[in-house]
Amino acid sequence: MRSDDIDGFYADLSALEADAHLLLDYRIECTGDPRAAAAHLASEQSTAQWQRVGVDEDYRPRFAAKVVDLEVETVLSGTSYPLDPPVNEPVSVCRVRIAHPYANFGPRIPNLLSAVLGEGAFFAPGIPVVKLLDLECPDAFLAHFDGPQYGLQGLRDLWRIHDRPFFFGVIKPNIGLAPAPFAELGLAAWRGGLDIAKDDEMLADPDWSPIAERSRLLGAARQQAEQETGVPKVYLANITDEVDRLVELHDIVVANGANAAMVNALPVGLSGVRGLRKHAKVPLVAHFPVIAAMSRLPCFGVHTRVLTKLQRLAGFDVIIMPGFGPRMMTAEDEVLECIAACTEPMGPIKPALPVPGGSDSAATLTSVHDKIASPDFGFVPGRGVFSHPHGPTGGAASLRQAWDAIAAGVAVREHAAQHPELAAALEAFG
Amino acid sequence: MRSDDIDGFYADLSALEADAHLLLDYRIECTGDPRAAAAHLASEQSTAQWQRVGVDEDYRPRFAAKVVDLEVETVLSGTSYPLDPPVNEPVSVCRVRIAHPYANFGPRIPNLLSAVLGEGAFFAPGIPVVKLLDLECPDAFLAHFDGPQYGLQGLRDLWRIHDRPFFFGVIKPNIGLAPAPFAELGLAAWRGGLDIAKDDEMLADPDWSPIAERSRLLGAARQQAEQETGVPKVYLANITDEVDRLVELHDIVVANGANAAMVNALPVGLSGVRGLRKHAKVPLVAHFPVIAAMSRLPCFGVHTRVLTKLQRLAGFDVIIMPGFGPRMMTAEDEVLECIAACTEPMGPIKPALPVPGGSDSAATLTSVHDKIASPDFGFVPGRGVFSHPHGPTGGAASLRQAWDAIAAGVAVREHAAQHPELAAALEAFG
Repeated sequence: MRSDDIDGFYADLSALEADAHLLLDYRIECTGDPRAAAAHLASEQSTAQWQRVGVDEDYRPRFAAKVVDLEVETVLSGTSYPLDPPVNEPVSVCRVRIAHPYANFGPRIPNLLSAVLGEGAFFAPGIPVVKLLDLECPDAFLAHFDGPQYGLQGLRDLWRIHDRPFFFGVIKPNIGLAPAPFAELGLAAWRGGLDIAKDDEMLADPDWSPIAERSRLLGAARQQAEQETGVPKVYLANITDEVDRLVELHDIVVANGANAAMVNALPVGLSGVRGLRKHAKVPLVAHFPVIAAMSRLPCFGVHTRVLTKLQRLAGFDVIIMPGFGPRMMTAEDEVLECIAACTEPMGPIKPALPVPGGSDSAATLTSVHDKIASPDFGFVPGRGVFSHPHGPTGGAASLRQAWDAIAAGVAVREHAAQHPELAAALEAFG
Repeated sequence: MRSDDIDGFYADLSALEADAHLLLDYRIECTGDPRAAAAHLASEQSTAQWQRVGVDEDYRPRFAAKVVDLEVETVLSGTSYPLDPPVNEPVSVCRVRIAHPYANFGPRIPNLLSAVLGEGAFFAPGIPVVKLLDLECPDAFLAHFDGPQYGLQGLRDLWRIHDRPFFFGVIKPNIGLAPAPFAELGLAAWRGGLDIAKDDEMLADPDWSPIAERSRLLGAARQQAEQETGVPKVYLANITDEVDRLVELHDIVVANGANAAMVNALPVGLSGVRGLRKHAKVPLVAHFPVIAAMSRLPCFGVHTRVLTKLQRLAGFDVIIMPGFGPRMMTAEDEVLECIAACTEPMGPIKPALPVPGGSDSAATLTSVHDKIASPDFGFVPGRGVFSHPHGPTGGAASLRQAWDAIAAGVAVREHAAQHPELAAALEAFG
């Protein structure tokens, strides 16, 4: 690009129509002139060739993505990560804010992903290392999406869970157990005080546990648990499958008594989820496979906050995400940012329930609650309920006992003295 | 995991039923004992808790993924990439081969992705850095998939392109140009000898170029070009959109005269593509947005070869991928591995046409052909055709002239002396 060509990819944000642009924040490591590199980042994701040969025209004013902010943070002697082919020259670390006119593609998830995480982002000349850190959509864009059907408050009302976290449990053994004993485990956990018994994200519709049979038995067990306990109980069925089976499986499990449906968001595709959302009668729950493959490295790929926002936009009521603690290899700030991405204002889109998960149990509830500083979250142990020494009833009870202590301002360890299930959980998992 | 628990996640490959297992090759960087880490990698992607509390049972023999090979390559003082939270201890670099019993989830793309790139791969205790390098599927698994409808040879027969590369061109300006002048550019390029004029991956169905109108004009222009030249011509329409519009858009563009359809594979989701394949009447073409976000780093994420195989499995006849040269930031070996993943034997699945792309022109054809050492590829310039100094007719002609030289064993530069379009291309792009 010539120097006067570069200017066509810069603009003052205040001069642009706010409702017509997405705002994208990238961190880049670029060779050469940062101003040229940022222009390439804008150009390659929009109008890379802005005129025909021999025609006096310029598509940039209306169609080009524009750099609206560029800040050079530092210069490194090479890229943060060794690459193949290697980059053997200094790179400038920059923050780039781009305003992208979304009329280039419209309110469509696949086209949005193609624009912000496509050839434009990852193959812009001179930018071998890039991470999309954030994405802001104007209300006019958001208004085209349904978002969560129930949302956080809707779930509280529907399931009568107030002023406390939502207690989920992943029924284990997750793989290999037949539907009948699987349902017994769910029932036992509901009896102990679990709100939501769920399928593991790897358990879908295999021959040895057909989802039709499993949902029938779990649906019946759930209704039995509701009768026994007098409170709503939820069976969250994992309907992750090929996109063209989602509606069918949703209908089967709901007819059989499941009252929430889980979809592994990226494996199925966010667009497939958006389609399911139009049909869904029950809350939709996201699980997070594949996301870490593009988000773990601090300076490459896409920040999980962006993918959290997109899952909310696609229509998930609940978003399960990697949570706190060393097991989940995620910085505490990042978990909190993803939780905020679920609940912060987002134009007409309802808040989703964040569920930070990973090796939790009654022993970790205080710490998770302290970090979030709010009861607006879901807590999702697996082994913390289903490997509890007293079995799932005791495992579920230990969670509720831990919460009772927290709500009363009593130390969990102290509360355990009168509550053997809690004591056993602290002993086994603490 | 206790040491005797670890053993349950190891097996001799020869003792396993070959037709019942996927073979997964990972490169990992692990803390602690590599044998335990590899067991976790197998465990977390399959039967993480293999027995109920108080029940004498073991789901591992039938359901566990098993480590069938583990090789410690070296020990590093820390991970190859700085992480947050940091890993401040030595790591062993290992190759791990895992045999995963696919009856755990069946021949479903979302469930396969969840197994091999899910929590099991990226959150296995002690493995902060992991890359899925390869995936081998037995014929019994592959047989459930349609794969490419035409395949490489089918495309040669359909489009009567023999003993030479397929010449694609991305019509540019890609964004902002109205359908009528866009069709004129396509027609001009077909007249010059282009086989396939295509939409840019960022051009789909915007208000300023509705795909119905664009495909009608391009379809008519294509038929005119066929009449004038007497050979088949292809208009490749980009139908990338929400999954629930793919079939509708396919039908519209085909009725209007498009004879191939492009889908941005990962943005739409491979499962959505597999669904479209069941309906498609024309060849399906993949484009590569998002893939680099999870594949560029040599030691993290997933190798592009795996995603190439999965695109072929999902049903793409043509796979556009980052090609040779510094612009595409991809190692030459990796491009060749992806090309091989398109064409190598894959049980009952037909070969796909590989199209390595990126800033190509008549000036790069010799080098690309030399690297691939076969005419079984597609060549996809954008500006190399549509920014050619003589316009698209000259740009397309320059490609065919370059190939004539290569086929005749004459140096392209020498051939240019008698061919002004080729000379102009070498001058502009060489």
